[in-house]
Amino acid sequence: MARSLEVVGERWTLLIVRDVLLGNCRFEEFVESLGITRTVLAHRLDKLVEHGLLERHRYQQRPDRYEYRPTAKAYGLLPVLAHLMRWGDEHYPHPAGPPRRLVHRGCGSELEFSHRCPRCEITPGQDEVNGEVNPALRHI
Amino acid sequence: MARSLEVVGERWTLLIVRDVLLGNCRFEEFVESLGITRTVLAHRLDKLVEHGLLERHRYQQRPDRYEYRPTAKAYGLLPVLAHLMRWGDEHYPHPAGPPRRLVHRGCGSELEFSHRCPRCEITPGQDEVNGEVNPALRHI
Repeated sequence: MARSLEVVGERWTLLIVRDVLLGNCRFEEFVESLGITRTVLAHRLDKLVEHGLLERHRYQQRPDRYEYRPTAKAYGLLPVLAHLMRWGDEHYPHPAGPPRRLVHRGCGSELEFSHRCPRCEITPGQDEVNGEVNPALRHI
Repeated sequence: MARSLEVVGERWTLLIVRDVLLGNCRFEEFVESLGITRTVLAHRLDKLVEHGLLERHRYQQRPDRYEYRPTAKAYGLLPVLAHLMRWGDEHYPHPAGPPRRLVHRGCGSELEFSHRCPRCEITPGQDEVNGEVNPALRHI
């Protein structure tokens, strides 16, 4: 996880990935949506392309303009972002309701996210979950 | 989510929360586990207490020493961390295998995390998931 956080462990980076997964793809859209400075945004986008989370596509010439599309690697962060959104909605609720929802495109229903023990076929409570460290890595 | 990231959107902060949820609780344990400087660690722990993710308990007097215990609010980040761990294991695999696993304490099985459309009773693929912005917040 430390390695993951070297890539996405920065506030703007996760917000850009969220924006891309929600459908924004152009520089100006990010500026408007995130209120981020252009210099910081350009740097973060470069880094996300370099790490294989975004692909850059030119959509206009003279001047050249690019849009950014999420890769499968970026889509892999969807559950991370979904749970972070839910946590934020619970602990820092917005008076107008949750700012964003993740829905099934086919029917518009909000997705449910859950964890499960496949052997016992139950959803363990928080005091029934253990973190185990890989013994091979204990002394690294 | 922007608000969530103001609280946890910093590499060390999420790593400290992960450590606490995995059972570490003392200053020296964090130093050893994370390789973080004492100054940064002290500052991040204060912030996590202030935001209600950790509770400080004195376990020794003269000199006073404290341990840090996770609150329910911190436990709410478990699915976020679990998915981030999985994403890291997939895209930045460690040669010795996943460094950490989340298991059901009762039987030791690794937990499964999934999303689901409750109406259609299916798990939509990544191209079937939409992000919807709350109309009341569109122009804020």
